[in-house]
Amino acid sequence: MSGSSSGLSSIESMGEGQGLPVATNPVALAQALIRQPSVCPDPGPAQHLLGAVLEQLGFTVWHLPYGEGAERTPNFFARRGHTGPHICFAGHTDVVPPGNEALWAHPPFAAHITEGVLYGRGACDMKGGIAAFVAAVARLIAQTELLAGSISFLITGDEEGPATYGTQKVLEWMAQEGQIPDYCVVGEPTNPAAMGDMVKIGRRGSLNAHIVVEGVQGHVAYPHRADNPVHRLLNILAALQAQPLDNGSDYFEPSSLQVTSVDVGNGATNVIPASAQARLNIRFNDLHTGAALSGWVQTICSQHAPKAKVDIKISGESFLTAPGPETTALVQAIEKITGRNPKLDTGGGTSDARFIANYCPVSEFGLVGASIHKVDEHTDVADLETLTQIYQTFLEGVLA
Amino acid sequence: MSGSSSGLSSIESMGEGQGLPVATNPVALAQALIRQPSVCPDPGPAQHLLGAVLEQLGFTVWHLPYGEGAERTPNFFARRGHTGPHICFAGHTDVVPPGNEALWAHPPFAAHITEGVLYGRGACDMKGGIAAFVAAVARLIAQTELLAGSISFLITGDEEGPATYGTQKVLEWMAQEGQIPDYCVVGEPTNPAAMGDMVKIGRRGSLNAHIVVEGVQGHVAYPHRADNPVHRLLNILAALQAQPLDNGSDYFEPSSLQVTSVDVGNGATNVIPASAQARLNIRFNDLHTGAALSGWVQTICSQHAPKAKVDIKISGESFLTAPGPETTALVQAIEKITGRNPKLDTGGGTSDARFIANYCPVSEFGLVGASIHKVDEHTDVADLETLTQIYQTFLEGVLA
Ligand SMILES: [Zn+2]
Ligand SMILES: [Zn+2]
Repeated sequence: MSGSSSGLSSIESMGEGQGLPVATNPVALAQALIRQPSVCPDPGPAQHLLGAVLEQLGFTVWHLPYGEGAERTPNFFARRGHTGPHICFAGHTDVVPPGNEALWAHPPFAAHITEGVLYGRGACDMKGGIAAFVAAVARLIAQTELLAGSISFLITGDEEGPATYGTQKVLEWMAQEGQIPDYCVVGEPTNPAAMGDMVKIGRRGSLNAHIVVEGVQGHVAYPHRADNPVHRLLNILAALQAQPLDNGSDYFEPSSLQVTSVDVGNGATNVIPASAQARLNIRFNDLHTGAALSGWVQTICSQHAPKAKVDIKISGESFLTAPGPETTALVQAIEKITGRNPKLDTGGGTSDARFIANYCPVSEFGLVGASIHKVDEHTDVADLETLTQIYQTFLEGVLA
Repeated sequence: MSGSSSGLSSIESMGEGQGLPVATNPVALAQALIRQPSVCPDPGPAQHLLGAVLEQLGFTVWHLPYGEGAERTPNFFARRGHTGPHICFAGHTDVVPPGNEALWAHPPFAAHITEGVLYGRGACDMKGGIAAFVAAVARLIAQTELLAGSISFLITGDEEGPATYGTQKVLEWMAQEGQIPDYCVVGEPTNPAAMGDMVKIGRRGSLNAHIVVEGVQGHVAYPHRADNPVHRLLNILAALQAQPLDNGSDYFEPSSLQVTSVDVGNGATNVIPASAQARLNIRFNDLHTGAALSGWVQTICSQHAPKAKVDIKISGESFLTAPGPETTALVQAIEKITGRNPKLDTGGGTSDARFIANYCPVSEFGLVGASIHKVDEHTDVADLETLTQIYQTFLEGVLA
């Protein structure tokens, strides 16, 4: 499971000589990264370690911190090569907090390996994924010193937080500097249960609405003297759910509207309350835009409660990278290494891929995500090697 | 506005000699009752004052306290005469709390009269109504010492509270003792705006339901892995409101279902909650029974949420006293004194008439109720005199 093989001694010694982990070994590199606690936003050391390893591999590293004070976010862009095709790996060094460390069987920042399993915060989300891509690049360089095209890294220290001073800002810089790649792979842990399960090629959009309906309070015995805001709100929610938003599209499941809360807080059984509110979330596919759905919600609210206050936040539009040659190369690499045919999926929550999709084709593939954000987050050591081989095979395919 | 007239001197002196108010004067008697604070349940003195006045008028008074400790409720039944027809007046000496007395322009238990208006807690609900009936009886006795038939009073000290040890218990005693009247008038303030507006001849029933739906919590991005209890609850509430319960009946408005609260309390916009609850009240007319409506609510809940917990309380069935000779006599008395034709109504909240209706025909007529349960509760002094004359005319009609 060392990941090293004969012929890589120059790279290995290059790392060891500086106290850096061996770049071709994804396990050692993942351990080194986990041992730099980098609870979001990454304070910096984990990212500087990673940048130093990449510099050793011949990358030019541009450190791009954004934000001030508590919001200061370390980020970097690193590139090796000057020509196309330009393949970028995007990832984050920040991790979610460990919570109560006493609940962990393995300390969250110790990177213990027990019976072939590496434990630690970030093991699969996503220091392990980063380590595998670096190892894939290091092995490729060891084989072929003069690679065709370019490989780059877009690394942020704030993906798990507001993500305001991270990937979006680096992408703006990349656009200004002519560094937008031809294709980007995000190393998020996309496999639900086993390596080769799933590649994400898009995500649904997400919209949150908060609806407040004011009525006229009164006694239940005299409803005609009151205006029951609960009834108006129930009519709104019924109208919003009267029909499915759609039946799904080529790569997307049907859009979904979930009412997450309704709150009145009226404890008096004989009183019609003065106000009622509801919250709902819509996960929408490529048949909708946030603006169109927002208008639809507003219209229905105004039909049933002309004075309703409707606060809508669009946290992301839907996006899709329809399969092209690079995604095909990634799928073929997965099939070659794992013998399995991954699903091309657009479900689940959001990631920074939503920002990257505005600039270039993007897909997501990484480790098994079952333990992310939980106590005793972990990855199989074998999966780190498998992912390294998949990334290397992919790079060989697209940079050939 | 004294209400006294020549020829009543013997009754007046009878009261004065004992420090009691003049029985023929509804204003003085209402003031004396208001000055005995009797926040529910009446601690007793107001009721004993009233009993003493009735004894002076030739009534036999049976004091009938029920309940123990903090629940102890003073009540009495008083009767004058032994033959039929037997007409009963029912009322309560207890009052709702004054709340913050600093908000009152006139102290709640001072019974101040300013510019023809009597202020105080209970002025219209219903010490004023009691005083008017007593004055009507006193004036009748002064005119005709040997009345035909019987007049009685059913007085409770707990109408505004749980009403457990009040009117219901006295009615049981009356039934055992052969004291059930031929007709009962409840002195609640039935007039919305002016004397002669409205006689109540029944009330709608009332049912409260509390519905709790449990689901399976989950992330909004994966609704198929969750079971949204809010959606199940919304479907229940929509089904309950899909059609009107009825279109009203001869003496009743349409039944009304009001959802008074819906509560989830989920602040996380990306989480489908585990549980949702709602409260509703049904005011129902004589086309329904509480049991039938209860079964209907249960059935709809189980259709949309088989495991829903449904807690239903029937606080009263609907009742109706279809107009007969006594109600006709009351309406004629109102028309004669006020020149107005009262509406025969069954709307509004509950009163102890719901208990009396199980034993004999009952109607309700009293003062103007616009200020009940509010700060600066009050009645026009002129209305006390009008009501006295209406009650006296009614008694002359039914006891002739
Ligand atoms: Zn992640
Ligand atoms: Zn009352």
